[in-house]
Amino acid sequence: MPEDQILFQPMGRRVRSQTDLTLLELANRAGAGIEAACGGKGRCGKCRVKIRGEALPPDESEQEVLGAEKSESCRLACQTYVRGSASVWIPEASRLHRQVILTAGNAYHVELDPGVRTLEIQVPLPDLQDPSADRERMIDTLNRSWEGDAEIEWETPLSVLRGLEEKLRSDNGRMAITADREGKILDIRPGTASACLGLAVDLGTTTVVAYLVDLSDGKVLGVQADMNPQVAEGEDVVSRISLCHQAPENLERLSRMVHECIARLAADACREAGAVPGRIFDCTVVGNTAMHHIFLGLNPAHLAMAPYTPVASGGLTVRSSELDLGLAAEARVYLPPVKAGFVGADAVAMAMALDADQTSVPTLMVDLGTNGEIVLATRDRILCCSTAAGPAFEGGHILWGMRGAPGAVDGVRLSQAGGVPVLSVIGGGAPRGICGSGLVSLVSELVAAGAITPAGAFDPGIPFPRLRDGQEGREYVLAAARETGTGRDLVLTHRDLAQLQLAKAAIHAGISLMMEELGVFRISRVLLAGAFGNYLDPACACGIRMLPGVTADRVTAVGNAAGTGAVMALVSRAQRTRAQALVDQMEYLELAVHPRFKEAYLDGMAFNG
Amino acid sequence: MPEDQILFQPMGRRVRSQTDLTLLELANRAGAGIEAACGGKGRCGKCRVKIRGEALPPDESEQEVLGAEKSESCRLACQTYVRGSASVWIPEASRLHRQVILTAGNAYHVELDPGVRTLEIQVPLPDLQDPSADRERMIDTLNRSWEGDAEIEWETPLSVLRGLEEKLRSDNGRMAITADREGKILDIRPGTASACLGLAVDLGTTTVVAYLVDLSDGKVLGVQADMNPQVAEGEDVVSRISLCHQAPENLERLSRMVHECIARLAADACREAGAVPGRIFDCTVVGNTAMHHIFLGLNPAHLAMAPYTPVASGGLTVRSSELDLGLAAEARVYLPPVKAGFVGADAVAMAMALDADQTSVPTLMVDLGTNGEIVLATRDRILCCSTAAGPAFEGGHILWGMRGAPGAVDGVRLSQAGGVPVLSVIGGGAPRGICGSGLVSLVSELVAAGAITPAGAFDPGIPFPRLRDGQEGREYVLAAARETGTGRDLVLTHRDLAQLQLAKAAIHAGISLMMEELGVFRISRVLLAGAFGNYLDPACACGIRMLPGVTADRVTAVGNAAGTGAVMALVSRAQRTRAQALVDQMEYLELAVHPRFKEAYLDGMAFNG
Repeated sequence: MPEDQILFQPMGRRVRSQTDLTLLELANRAGAGIEAACGGKGRCGKCRVKIRGEALPPDESEQEVLGAEKSESCRLACQTYVRGSASVWIPEASRLHRQVILTAGNAYHVELDPGVRTLEIQVPLPDLQDPSADRERMIDTLNRSWEGDAEIEWETPLSVLRGLEEKLRSDNGRMAITADREGKILDIRPGTASACLGLAVDLGTTTVVAYLVDLSDGKVLGVQADMNPQVAEGEDVVSRISLCHQAPENLERLSRMVHECIARLAADACREAGAVPGRIFDCTVVGNTAMHHIFLGLNPAHLAMAPYTPVASGGLTVRSSELDLGLAAEARVYLPPVKAGFVGADAVAMAMALDADQTSVPTLMVDLGTNGEIVLATRDRILCCSTAAGPAFEGGHILWGMRGAPGAVDGVRLSQAGGVPVLSVIGGGAPRGICGSGLVSLVSELVAAGAITPAGAFDPGIPFPRLRDGQEGREYVLAAARETGTGRDLVLTHRDLAQLQLAKAAIHAGISLMMEELGVFRISRVLLAGAFGNYLDPACACGIRMLPGVTADRVTAVGNAAGTGAVMALVSRAQRTRAQALVDQMEYLELAVHPRFKEAYLDGMAFNG
Repeated sequence: MPEDQILFQPMGRRVRSQTDLTLLELANRAGAGIEAACGGKGRCGKCRVKIRGEALPPDESEQEVLGAEKSESCRLACQTYVRGSASVWIPEASRLHRQVILTAGNAYHVELDPGVRTLEIQVPLPDLQDPSADRERMIDTLNRSWEGDAEIEWETPLSVLRGLEEKLRSDNGRMAITADREGKILDIRPGTASACLGLAVDLGTTTVVAYLVDLSDGKVLGVQADMNPQVAEGEDVVSRISLCHQAPENLERLSRMVHECIARLAADACREAGAVPGRIFDCTVVGNTAMHHIFLGLNPAHLAMAPYTPVASGGLTVRSSELDLGLAAEARVYLPPVKAGFVGADAVAMAMALDADQTSVPTLMVDLGTNGEIVLATRDRILCCSTAAGPAFEGGHILWGMRGAPGAVDGVRLSQAGGVPVLSVIGGGAPRGICGSGLVSLVSELVAAGAITPAGAFDPGIPFPRLRDGQEGREYVLAAARETGTGRDLVLTHRDLAQLQLAKAAIHAGISLMMEELGVFRISRVLLAGAFGNYLDPACACGIRMLPGVTADRVTAVGNAAGTGAVMALVSRAQRTRAQALVDQMEYLELAVHPRFKEAYLDGMAFNG
């Protein structure tokens, strides 16, 4: 039977339902921050949410605070207890982090300062007394209206100049000009100004998420996500790199695939927001270094061979027309800097969104995936590394492994004595496989129950329920054939166990060596970013000894930090400068050549101690 | 019988042959300057030329100076007298003006300072100690090698980044980088540096001239010229403007025509110089405002209606890929500023090449054509205007008018008493028509002989040889049917006379009003630029009273000054700045609204006084 869950939207964060915690507490546990200026006392009314599901009814004082907005579904999160599963919509006004990414109101987080803006001007029509050229009269007017940038030398691409004479005259000189802050005019049109939009893209190996943003106020107008279509050509980064290495046309194809995907997401987001992609003038794209390269059409081959050199690593601004993203003709695309072959712009964006440069206590930021990208920040230094964890966390190379899709076991609970495991299955129903978070959860429970030795084997000395000798050795039966959606036993083999062990040892070793390098003995906070980190139960992560020297209460899932970073860089030029400063400050620890890596890796294998 | 002529190459300047003048004197008369450091005393040997034609043989002292180079055709221009027609090749080393446009050696004319250059660098290959990105290592090396530009922020277009990893490694890090001085990298290739070329284009209404220039030393490697293919769609500027006004596809077609023409000239010039157009990274194009607009694909419609407003007038740099000129993929194209609807970048380039901003005496610069573009410069002010002279100077609207092509009468001499006129025919042979310079020459002779009244009519009171009543009124028979190549009488009608009168009156009026505006009573120098100005006999121009207050000895033909200006702007960034300063300094006199234009025009009609 699937466990009850609360799904927080629009972040898509999930958490186990608990009747003794308020929605506010559950949201914080899920990393879906909700405003609570009064500290959860039901007074400020800032934590309004909309609920679909069964909740205890509001008391009188809550009703009073809700006032006119009172309805069946509108509630104060801090006063609401939910029974069973529910879906909770957190309106923008109630989101804790909205200032960070969404508006300019709260200047100390991200001051709205986009690289592109639209301005409405009134250009005088020419006459014999002033027959100066249309472009020059337009620029004169622009110089008088454009604020904040001194001594701009305006650049007018031909695409903008062509037809200027007609646009200028068709509404008697009233025009909307869109330009970047360096003075390049990107678009002109007659009449009043329309939206100036931006697109922030988190380009993951597996998923692509696009945020449509109004650059005039920083508001996120819509979010769209899809699988990265390149998955069809290769599950992980390494297989795609080797594909590109084989033939230039493979690189072109993979590149085009992701351009088309982004164009589709942009179009979908615009349709839902009642906008048009032709009004998107600025775009930020963050991804790991391989995704960054393939997106740009740069050959990623050298990322997979020592010394793992990127073709380009600095922040780049390119013309969107070179990439065919379906945005405005003169739109620009900004890619934040990457740090190294396996520490990409996504890690930089994560470090930026999680304030790695402003922490006062040792803080660990981990984006878990095929490659674990790890940042350890102290007051003085920021260290980063990448560990080749392998695909186990994404269900790869696991006999019954699968992605976090419907039918996947994503959580397991065992009683101390073993017995029948309680499974959480995504979407409910019979299990068809096990995903990364389920795998970590299961192994954590088996370790706790003593079925797995500290060294990482199914303990042969101890009889344990559902542990048996299979065709290929010892295995644990998670669900018998009659209980599964496949009609076959769902098992965890000793090979699967070894795969997970290798993956978590790599993470453990990376973190250990980083702590050693920085002289950190205890990590104060662990922030788990990315989809896997979001679904991973911190207790289970600690239960398999993946995070050295950390207890579960220090661990928080923070959602798509890379996407947040992409939005920040979209709405603020200062954040782009900050991204470069961060990359300069970040020190890259190359584990491949670290003299103590093997030792740390072996040490990381243990499940206990 | 055609008169004997000396043709000076490569300038294509022609002058009547005179046996009592040396080639040096004739060259100076033709405006084809030859070096003569010793003042024409046969000592310095700098005036070496190659002659095809009949010349008096060299004496001993000339032979001595010629030394090893002595040959039948190689001579000192200052010592050589030629009989009959001849063609004279002036080698680059002997050209007087070579420093101005061709080399950087003579820094006080144009200091070589091109906007693009190619540099050879040695980029270190990456290793595990320095696995930084290829682009960043390349830029580090570039920063150490690139001189003269502080704090460059390098821009690397995708076209340059793609394939970088291979180019960098294929010759162990040795690379040739081509970049502009603003830091945009235009091309990279492995190995040693090859040529960095530029193309200067004089885009005329009738002809297109392209100069291929080596940007590393400023040398002109080759010159190619062709008819502007747009001529097939409309002879003059106004007809092409009205074509563009009719339908956008006409603009596109005319635009494409001239792009293809320039691409062809560039390819031809490169083939002859043993170079490739893909190495042309910078290009300057000067033309009148209509040619400028059509070249860029800007609608010229408003140039032909009051208040004659250009779409754009400031200096523009565009990507050559937007125009399909067949140059390097990332080549840039610079268009100097235009002053007004009918004073284009060609006039600005002329003013620059002729130092309008450095004159100490009132100097008049005239580019005669369908539009006469006139610049009058004094020590303090530079005035410019444009007069709609009509097509008479190009043989248009004249019964037997034609361009300056083989068969055209380009000069006429009459005895005081009339009698049989002596004709100069281009290419020799029987005359087929009369071109602009022939027309001016003929009318000047008729005025001098008293056959034309000061008011501009064939004098009815005086009987004059070959003057008769034709079908449409009085006409002068230049050649009888039996002497012409057409088998018909070649005549000058009273309508033709009126056409020329209108044309020269417009020029006269423009110059008069400019003189009035500047308070100039006497012009010290007249510089005639352009093809027509080059073939026009100054005495004839004065003979029809086209240039007010000027005697023939003050008039010099200066050849293609606009083309020279285009080359200057190509090899020197300072000259681009100067072009803008010139435009800012130039004052535009709009004749169309001048209160005294009609009066001055009527006054300009007179052929005498």
